[in-house]
Amino acid sequence: MTQPIKALLFDVFGTVVDWRAGIIREGEEFGRVNGLTGIDWTAFADAWRALYQPTLEKVRSGEAPWQPLDDLHRMELNKLLSERGIAHIPEAAVDHFNRAWHRLPAWPDAVPGLLRMKKKYILATCSNGNVAQMVNLAKYSGLPWDMVLGAEMARQYKPRPEVYQISVAMLRLHPAECVMVAAHNYDLRAAAGCGLKCAFVVRPKEYGPAVKPDLAPSQKWDFVTEDFNMLAEQLGC
Amino acid sequence: MTQPIKALLFDVFGTVVDWRAGIIREGEEFGRVNGLTGIDWTAFADAWRALYQPTLEKVRSGEAPWQPLDDLHRMELNKLLSERGIAHIPEAAVDHFNRAWHRLPAWPDAVPGLLRMKKKYILATCSNGNVAQMVNLAKYSGLPWDMVLGAEMARQYKPRPEVYQISVAMLRLHPAECVMVAAHNYDLRAAAGCGLKCAFVVRPKEYGPAVKPDLAPSQKWDFVTEDFNMLAEQLGC
Repeated sequence: MTQPIKALLFDVFGTVVDWRAGIIREGEEFGRVNGLTGIDWTAFADAWRALYQPTLEKVRSGEAPWQPLDDLHRMELNKLLSERGIAHIPEAAVDHFNRAWHRLPAWPDAVPGLLRMKKKYILATCSNGNVAQMVNLAKYSGLPWDMVLGAEMARQYKPRPEVYQISVAMLRLHPAECVMVAAHNYDLRAAAGCGLKCAFVVRPKEYGPAVKPDLAPSQKWDFVTEDFNMLAEQLGC
Repeated sequence: MTQPIKALLFDVFGTVVDWRAGIIREGEEFGRVNGLTGIDWTAFADAWRALYQPTLEKVRSGEAPWQPLDDLHRMELNKLLSERGIAHIPEAAVDHFNRAWHRLPAWPDAVPGLLRMKKKYILATCSNGNVAQMVNLAKYSGLPWDMVLGAEMARQYKPRPEVYQISVAMLRLHPAECVMVAAHNYDLRAAAGCGLKCAFVVRPKEYGPAVKPDLAPSQKWDFVTEDFNMLAEQLGC
């Protein structure tokens, strides 16, 4: 017997929000406010995100203790600014820029699709972002989550299985009653390994024009969609 | 300098929802469906709630390990049914009755007041209920939480300080940026001890006509209100 679906768990950065456009825009503002010239903020955004997996891998491998993503972002940001010879920026301004990850625009279909799906299902994040990031991002972009789950609950980072397992356990559901929704095949592979159903959403613009890592499903996922409205439709909302 | 308020943390059972009316109604339905006669479901509801603090105290004192409130409720329910000689009820029916705590009516002012406050503040639960209870209760009654925090995050029960402390820490706020909202003075005393601001909401009907434990603030709280609309007004919403 197929388990009926009760909850949808969402990856957020790239799947729900356009982190790249957001960080570029916030970088440009940070530069303007602090009188920085000659910085390519698009390259800066890409460089910041390029540090993401290597930093998380240190936690996943046990080399570094778990820390909220906000704190990891801040260490990376300090490094990036220092490499570019940017110093003497007031602490509060650097902190504001670090919290750019709390102010990212949703993909245009995200909020309308989520509102449709919320009527029928529990909607929760299952992101590597920490709770404060997810809560503030939801306030900023109007994302109608019922709950924030994910990395901070497990004090580990995806794709480690405990992140999906604890998220499902906190909802007191069976894994097969949950659908992991993500634009990244590696995330879905890990969720599927924990028994969750999987929905792939193609986000061709996530990394800008140059990099296109996940333009197609890597295997036969339960749902394959081009945006959240199509996902809502496939889920009978 | 007074810290500006950024988040409101809510006690839920009694403060936001009328657990007593809900449990009585669900008890009557449980009795009807399972052919039970001669049970006073009002007394049953009061007896169930009377086991609450003694059961939690075992966890707080270290005598018992932490378990989600759903599981503690179930142990209490088994005891109450057994004491009344009620046996041979199908497991699924007992489980459904135990999840009556996921289907409780909100006080009439709760949803309108919360919707007003949500525009200006982060709204989170800080309840002894577990995540699944809070998420399902929110779906059932339309409670517009931004986040579910509280006991399950700390794996301890209020009024132990770590429940308030972890809830505030997950939002990455200072305690004084948060207001604990509750109809129970003991809850507010503990929150105040952790540095949170406090709002007392009088809920004279929580325990029915007989018991009236918290009809007035026991000390000078930051806010004292008769319902959530008045609270919204006092908070400038």
